[in-house]
Amino acid sequence: MNYCFGVDIGGTTVKLGLFQEDGKLQEKWEIKTRIEDKGSRILPDIAESLMDCLEKNGISKEEVAGIGIGVPAPITEEGIVKATANLGWEYKNVKKEMEELTGIKTATGNDANVAALGEMWLGGGRGCRNMIMVTLGTGVGGGILINGKILAGEHGAGGEIGHLCVNYEETESCGCGNHGCLEQYASATGITRLAKKKLEATDQDTVLREGEVSAKTVFDAVKAGDKVADEIAWEFGRYLGYALANLAAAVDPAAIVIGGGVSKAGEVLIPYIEKPYQERAFFADKDVRFTLAELGNDAGICGAAKLVLDEK
Amino acid sequence: MNYCFGVDIGGTTVKLGLFQEDGKLQEKWEIKTRIEDKGSRILPDIAESLMDCLEKNGISKEEVAGIGIGVPAPITEEGIVKATANLGWEYKNVKKEMEELTGIKTATGNDANVAALGEMWLGGGRGCRNMIMVTLGTGVGGGILINGKILAGEHGAGGEIGHLCVNYEETESCGCGNHGCLEQYASATGITRLAKKKLEATDQDTVLREGEVSAKTVFDAVKAGDKVADEIAWEFGRYLGYALANLAAAVDPAAIVIGGGVSKAGEVLIPYIEKPYQERAFFADKDVRFTLAELGNDAGICGAAKLVLDEK
Repeated sequence: MNYCFGVDIGGTTVKLGLFQEDGKLQEKWEIKTRIEDKGSRILPDIAESLMDCLEKNGISKEEVAGIGIGVPAPITEEGIVKATANLGWEYKNVKKEMEELTGIKTATGNDANVAALGEMWLGGGRGCRNMIMVTLGTGVGGGILINGKILAGEHGAGGEIGHLCVNYEETESCGCGNHGCLEQYASATGITRLAKKKLEATDQDTVLREGEVSAKTVFDAVKAGDKVADEIAWEFGRYLGYALANLAAAVDPAAIVIGGGVSKAGEVLIPYIEKPYQERAFFADKDVRFTLAELGNDAGICGAAKLVLDEK
Repeated sequence: MNYCFGVDIGGTTVKLGLFQEDGKLQEKWEIKTRIEDKGSRILPDIAESLMDCLEKNGISKEEVAGIGIGVPAPITEEGIVKATANLGWEYKNVKKEMEELTGIKTATGNDANVAALGEMWLGGGRGCRNMIMVTLGTGVGGGILINGKILAGEHGAGGEIGHLCVNYEETESCGCGNHGCLEQYASATGITRLAKKKLEATDQDTVLREGEVSAKTVFDAVKAGDKVADEIAWEFGRYLGYALANLAAAVDPAAIVIGGGVSKAGEVLIPYIEKPYQERAFFADKDVRFTLAELGNDAGICGAAKLVLDEK
């Protein structure tokens, strides 16, 4: 038992990694996610690719502790998916199917939760047992870790941080159908939306009027000292920081890890989130470490591998 | 190992129970909480009372699986309290001290979290593994259970549901120093406050103008068909239901249990909370059972006993 696999299934590619049990990533690669025919090829493709890897490296199945898989959908502790937005799957027992395909023990989790586990194991949350990770990408995802374990919840939908309501007055709809979700303000798309509104509402000079505005141009402008960009960043940070303060009242974390595309802006991001958090946090939750995610696109395969090692 | 003790420490009395391991409460009693001298007598008084109970019933220490204790303060997983509002304790290792006093294995938890565990074991949440309990009393307390275990958090302050901010425009202060905490609207005191504001703001006829207004008179009036009381109840329910919907996005529970003095109003309470919850809940969290707590003042000693049995 010297190895394990971490697999991160996405809508366009599947990321795969061969890990040593101490966490060393020995090899990583990608395959295409074939979503046609209700995604029926996805798991067989993964199984085949993993078996090829074993053969190529001269590793026997007996040396593999297991396969961990992160799935972009709610998934129960038993490994069952009821529906997916972008894989074509309807009901599927991912764990059972992969075990039958490979003969290797399989563990599963939601992709955002699994990425959080990866960051706790090898990334920004190293050394923590209680952690919130928030992923600021096209949407806002998240994962909550309690005593080192994923908070999966009853329907596998734990940690859906992007869908906390932070503005009950919002008239525009979130993708989920509700109004005022955190995702509408703190995702890359949300930041762009805040920026466009701000540019309409103010006559102040700003570099943001030159060319297309995006989360990236906003934080580039922040770094360049642009005042309007600074105001947009505070608006983003208040929504996110206040939401995290509420979440902390429930979860009482040691660390909050910020990941996703928006976090590429770097350390400049942290004060905009941490200051509003500290303004609103319950006194017992003020002692929290804010940190950036460190593993980037590898968080998913790392967390998936850790799922396996935790079950040993 | 046929017995265990459940102990629930409060600011004025300590409740104690002798349980059989199948959950049968064989005997319960109370002693005074002596908070003088920095509460130094509290644990020795409890130890003495438990030893008396064993002697009286002819039970040997060897037949006792352990002592579970609920404490009205944040308490770490290791059993350490850093400060208490109403016991006089400063730093105290409750677990270690009780084990030294009695020679019996001791488990500890925060009182609200422990009461939630009790309700899951023997009360309104029976059969659940993932549950939120909210206790509507003088304040608003709560407990979150994940996979059957208390979410204690990094500083022992998990499940502080009463201090989720639900109104960022609030000018009056909560007891915790923040503004707009759920406790300011959904506790017995909070409901009274909402009622008084409503009575000032409206000229409508209502029985609530006759005599002192309280959470009890509001829900009595609701039952009698009073329209103003109905509006106050909806205001209360929106704050609580929306807060629970946000909490559910993080926790994804199977059941939400409503306890505390306010819950004595009975089933009439549920729709006022459940309807706003359903309006705002993330789609994956709509399948939740709302239920009333069933154990009343025994929830604490039951949950404390269960702490012990879970550690066996």
